[in-house]
Amino acid sequence: MHPLQKKRLEYIPQIPSLLLKPNEVVFTRKLQERKGASHLKHLFPKTWEQRGAELVAGNGRKTPLRIGLFFSGGQAPGGHNVIAGIWDTIQRISTSSQLIGFINGPAGLIEKKWRYLKGGEIDEVRNMGGFDLIGSGRTKIETPDQFSACLQVCNELTLDGLVVIGGDDSNTNAATLAEYFLVNECPTKVVGVPKTIDGDLRSDEIEMSFGFDSACKTYAEMIGNIARDAKSAKKYTHFIKLMGRSASHITLECAIATHPNLALIGEEGKNLEAIVAEIADLIETRKGQGKEYGVILIPEGLLEFIPEMKALIVELNQLLAKGETQESLKQKNKTLFYSLPSKIQAQLLLERDSHGNVALSQIETEELLIELVKEELGRRSFKGKFSPVAHFFGYEGRSCYPSNFDANYCYALGCMAALGIRDEMSGALCAIQNLAQDQEAWQCSLVPIVQLMQMEERKGMQKPVIAKALVNLESKPFLHFAKNRESWKFDDEYQNPGPMQFFGEKEITDTVPFTMR
Amino acid sequence: MHPLQKKRLEYIPQIPSLLLKPNEVVFTRKLQERKGASHLKHLFPKTWEQRGAELVAGNGRKTPLRIGLFFSGGQAPGGHNVIAGIWDTIQRISTSSQLIGFINGPAGLIEKKWRYLKGGEIDEVRNMGGFDLIGSGRTKIETPDQFSACLQVCNELTLDGLVVIGGDDSNTNAATLAEYFLVNECPTKVVGVPKTIDGDLRSDEIEMSFGFDSACKTYAEMIGNIARDAKSAKKYTHFIKLMGRSASHITLECAIATHPNLALIGEEGKNLEAIVAEIADLIETRKGQGKEYGVILIPEGLLEFIPEMKALIVELNQLLAKGETQESLKQKNKTLFYSLPSKIQAQLLLERDSHGNVALSQIETEELLIELVKEELGRRSFKGKFSPVAHFFGYEGRSCYPSNFDANYCYALGCMAALGIRDEMSGALCAIQNLAQDQEAWQCSLVPIVQLMQMEERKGMQKPVIAKALVNLESKPFLHFAKNRESWKFDDEYQNPGPMQFFGEKEITDTVPFTMR
Repeated sequence: MHPLQKKRLEYIPQIPSLLLKPNEVVFTRKLQERKGASHLKHLFPKTWEQRGAELVAGNGRKTPLRIGLFFSGGQAPGGHNVIAGIWDTIQRISTSSQLIGFINGPAGLIEKKWRYLKGGEIDEVRNMGGFDLIGSGRTKIETPDQFSACLQVCNELTLDGLVVIGGDDSNTNAATLAEYFLVNECPTKVVGVPKTIDGDLRSDEIEMSFGFDSACKTYAEMIGNIARDAKSAKKYTHFIKLMGRSASHITLECAIATHPNLALIGEEGKNLEAIVAEIADLIETRKGQGKEYGVILIPEGLLEFIPEMKALIVELNQLLAKGETQESLKQKNKTLFYSLPSKIQAQLLLERDSHGNVALSQIETEELLIELVKEELGRRSFKGKFSPVAHFFGYEGRSCYPSNFDANYCYALGCMAALGIRDEMSGALCAIQNLAQDQEAWQCSLVPIVQLMQMEERKGMQKPVIAKALVNLESKPFLHFAKNRESWKFDDEYQNPGPMQFFGEKEITDTVPFTMR
Repeated sequence: MHPLQKKRLEYIPQIPSLLLKPNEVVFTRKLQERKGASHLKHLFPKTWEQRGAELVAGNGRKTPLRIGLFFSGGQAPGGHNVIAGIWDTIQRISTSSQLIGFINGPAGLIEKKWRYLKGGEIDEVRNMGGFDLIGSGRTKIETPDQFSACLQVCNELTLDGLVVIGGDDSNTNAATLAEYFLVNECPTKVVGVPKTIDGDLRSDEIEMSFGFDSACKTYAEMIGNIARDAKSAKKYTHFIKLMGRSASHITLECAIATHPNLALIGEEGKNLEAIVAEIADLIETRKGQGKEYGVILIPEGLLEFIPEMKALIVELNQLLAKGETQESLKQKNKTLFYSLPSKIQAQLLLERDSHGNVALSQIETEELLIELVKEELGRRSFKGKFSPVAHFFGYEGRSCYPSNFDANYCYALGCMAALGIRDEMSGALCAIQNLAQDQEAWQCSLVPIVQLMQMEERKGMQKPVIAKALVNLESKPFLHFAKNRESWKFDDEYQNPGPMQFFGEKEITDTVPFTMR
């Protein structure tokens, strides 16, 4: 085993000292008003009644706990520490407590594939990336049969609680499951933990989902390296697409960390022509400065925000569903379709997700932009060199070593999930406020998931879901970015965050995301 | 500026204490026999006469020095420290010494584009990646006009010495230039510094080129992350191509660091069918174990070592040079050509380097293998899932933060280059032995470049060049790899080297490459 891996296994996460004394704390219902979501009351009659809770001093119950858990969706660094936090807490409460891991995500629960998790194997993944201890999966708990299977398994295993470690969809699932269990008098409490590198599971209460910090630090390391290389070689324009489904949080965070020449933020809603023109302008102006190189960041979800691409895709989805072809597109959409590079046309026609829709994430946005910029530069009779290099950073950051921030945060979230179950909360999400401050200032609460939900169309039906938090164009981080980006375009103020550090001074090892500061 | 960047600027490279006292050391000609290369004597009559030199205690000259330098070829982490080492040494010798940086590589020398380098700006790039202080370039010094331009510039600038920081080709150039200067009585001494992340500039004397360690650590960090993700998601087979032109050193080093399921080593010379069969076997067997995922490393230079691809490319080069097409290929090559995916066929016909040859590095070997493996699995009626994801890691590692090893090594090389010039060595390459040991055990010598050279065909003519060091299939590192790779195939022994660390215990911060141990 690598020496660093060995050392990291020994790292003790830094968390509020309250969380280390489970017998001296309790989650108590807050007295303040419920927020919004009253139109969801009829869908969640039981959980709607519940209020949020905060952790305060008190006499905690000491009875042994049996807790089940699963990972849901894509990996995020720190997941193993959530498990470690739960394990340590239930052991501190009673050494007779037991932890059950459902294998490969929600499917493990539905299909009753599980195993006991023991201290020894948990010790082998402390502060380590990945979800490999029990795997993850993307099965959604949707059908009545699936709900009843879950209930039966939780009853059979006599679980006090179930911890769902997942993103917006998975925690929507957690809320529905909690309600279903309450209605059907299953004693298993369901508590969610906010996971996603995308950073789009955020609210007033949820300052950050776990994994975002580590993933962004890994991407920013690579972007900084590439920018330094670009400035040295002076030959290539790097188009770097960054993972993160819809929202552009990762791109914004990495932009603030590295100062690329351009970072596209989907939420600005620019049209394709404007984006291509902006890149072409950048390349022309830099060429005028003798700089035939550059670095451009592209969020994976960009296309979803481009109005005319959205319109094209909506119509294309409808036509293809009816068995028609792109030939039947309305004139405007048809013109756009045929103006796209043939590779992208083919991807629009071929790549469909499980609902038959165009799988936007499969479309190579970075290649699309490169092709369109080439054409645009051609139209402008650009005389310089334009040597684009495409990159996609995603898998590199999903299972990296968790940063100290994520290691600490996740361990605390695990402790809270265990305590929430002990204190009989259900349908709630673990939330910590004041995350940018010292751990002792962290405020631990449980937020009813229903408060984060709204009705949205899914497969043609209105469904209650957790709203994805997009980049707020009025927020401090975005405004900071917007204020500085013009000088980044031409002045090559590239920054080198470098590799994540785990030893040494806190200002190097314990930073929090820029977009959270 | 990022706190880590600030901290790294302050790092003091650890080098043999001898190098810190330039006035108390001298390079002295070794007495041992010249090695080999006697058939090159007529090409290098002057430098051939010179012997290697070693650094010993003595009274060093204290006259001010004027040294010019340039970077040549691709970036390698640590380059800036070579400059810092030279600068600090000539300042220690005399504060009237001056350092001249030629801009954007050898072209800067030929075209007399240069500027003085000063302490302040050098302080801003200490221990930092990239070559951005003065840029780099790939111009070769080949024509009589170019040689005479170089001589004129060095004379005009009254340079005591010229430091060439480059790989095999650039140091071949350094040797030729040194000879030319000696013959033409130009007093400028030419000293080379072994740079290349590829790790193929090695010999008995040159244990390692600089940059290899840092680049491999960066790639290994990413590979480890992806492997952990693969094992967690259980969905994808990652085909990771690694930079490194011909030789497979980077792939071998990263394989030993991360234990992928398969790492192809070009030097084994397997044919295409065998490689595809090996991958298909791997996927089938793992599928049998319930593992529909994996990690495969591919060296950038793989195709050059595949006998039938080599034969195809040689014939294709000849045909295309004569204006003929692939239709005129011999039957065997024609069959192979048409068995390749159409995208690769197009690349073989279209992508040519500056000599009109197929640019192998432009061919997407990872995509080629993916397509061929898909076809092979189809022929085998494979029933499992095969979801390949292609990656190419290159630019991420060329300009990353230098590891402590590279930071130390490069600084020492810079000190040696300056001392070598002071002690009137020319046509020599800086070499340190015992690199895997503590710095005080490092042995500093200057090796006549001509000793590393042999005759090879270039553009149809026999030319003296530095022989590229390929992976030695009898070497300890390769044998270690070969012994273990079967268990890596199926047992998922993935290792997580994690991000490079700069603070903390030496076993974490000061490791040397596995392939050097």
